[in-house]
Amino acid sequence: MFSNEARNALYDIIRMRRDVRAEFAGDTVTEDVLWRILAAAHHAPSVGNTQPWDFVVVQDEQRLEAFAEHVAGCRQAFADSLPEDRRHTFDPIKVEGIVESRTGIVVTYDPERGGKHILGRHTIDDSGLFSAVLAIQNLWLAATAEGLGVGWVSFYDEPFLTEFIGAEGAVRPIAWLCVGPVTRLQEVPDLERFGWRRGRPLTDAVHRDRFGDAYEQQDTAEA
Amino acid sequence: MFSNEARNALYDIIRMRRDVRAEFAGDTVTEDVLWRILAAAHHAPSVGNTQPWDFVVVQDEQRLEAFAEHVAGCRQAFADSLPEDRRHTFDPIKVEGIVESRTGIVVTYDPERGGKHILGRHTIDDSGLFSAVLAIQNLWLAATAEGLGVGWVSFYDEPFLTEFIGAEGAVRPIAWLCVGPVTRLQEVPDLERFGWRRGRPLTDAVHRDRFGDAYEQQDTAEA
Repeated sequence: MFSNEARNALYDIIRMRRDVRAEFAGDTVTEDVLWRILAAAHHAPSVGNTQPWDFVVVQDEQRLEAFAEHVAGCRQAFADSLPEDRRHTFDPIKVEGIVESRTGIVVTYDPERGGKHILGRHTIDDSGLFSAVLAIQNLWLAATAEGLGVGWVSFYDEPFLTEFIGAEGAVRPIAWLCVGPVTRLQEVPDLERFGWRRGRPLTDAVHRDRFGDAYEQQDTAEA
Repeated sequence: MFSNEARNALYDIIRMRRDVRAEFAGDTVTEDVLWRILAAAHHAPSVGNTQPWDFVVVQDEQRLEAFAEHVAGCRQAFADSLPEDRRHTFDPIKVEGIVESRTGIVVTYDPERGGKHILGRHTIDDSGLFSAVLAIQNLWLAATAEGLGVGWVSFYDEPFLTEFIGAEGAVRPIAWLCVGPVTRLQEVPDLERFGWRRGRPLTDAVHRDRFGDAYEQQDTAEA
């Protein structure tokens, strides 16, 4: 259904996608590109077709600065919690590009969207929340393909962000995404470059039948 | 950084992706394609670079049948919970293609991977869980590009699936994905086709500054 070129384009985008902090160029994403990546997010799958996400776009400089100040406090609290060696490793790592990206997108989850009888959430309630996360990955890949960077900031207190965007009732902010044009994307993720944590091989993550069992190839001709 | 063709390929894949139940062709995904889509999943971003996901591949026919039987029971319980009119709408909707897809991938989340001091999970603990969900969307798009279908099944009791794959300790199964070659992908999502629930317009989901406020375009030249 898709050509080899299309498939390879997707794999390239997936491989090049980075969690950006330091590479924002300081320009604001244009309106048309912003809406294209939001449309990509909105095309995500959702349990019971509830589309439980919303996107709150923040571009006002004073508001970006206010959120960045809150995040700086949370960063400090994390630094203070670390043993000394890890703290030295952590110190040079930038955890957000809130002001420099010039656009924040707060993604929210509304557990009440779709009413009482949600097809597929009867047994696994979290599947609603998961839907909103799937939308984020669509947005992230679309932004990468558009030459933008995205940085997911999770150094914040949730009640602060709830209040900041005026979410009411059961609506919950689940992410602050810094989105903006970048000078470049790093080839190696920041946390590897700064020696925080390396990845693990894929083969360690794949199992046959039971968690922890090694994957052994089967004769698919017989399967 | 990416060509228009690459960008458009991504948007096509995002738009064509479906949650598949009825269109599995009955063949088993080949090993090389299976590993390509698993590699795409493994390239997802993760909080603190923890990569807290694992993938348990189930292809044994008896095991697929056993899980399908459990899911049939959960489907019935949901049907029984519905008011009569919704039940009639629900009745013809197929909720899984476990046996026909010939491959189940159980995605798990390990909250303990990465130890005690996880960069970015200090304030938002759920960000670990969210990482595993991002991996699922990568896998889903990769599978679509490879001509496969993916169907996320959430009609199961979590303790049953935990036991089924032998996950221990804090490890939690978060999804059963049916993965396999398809005869076609539907253009319109099943839940719309069967009259269960329509989507909402993107413009309703995007707000400026505060949740619920309409988005009004700003003069980006001034921003």
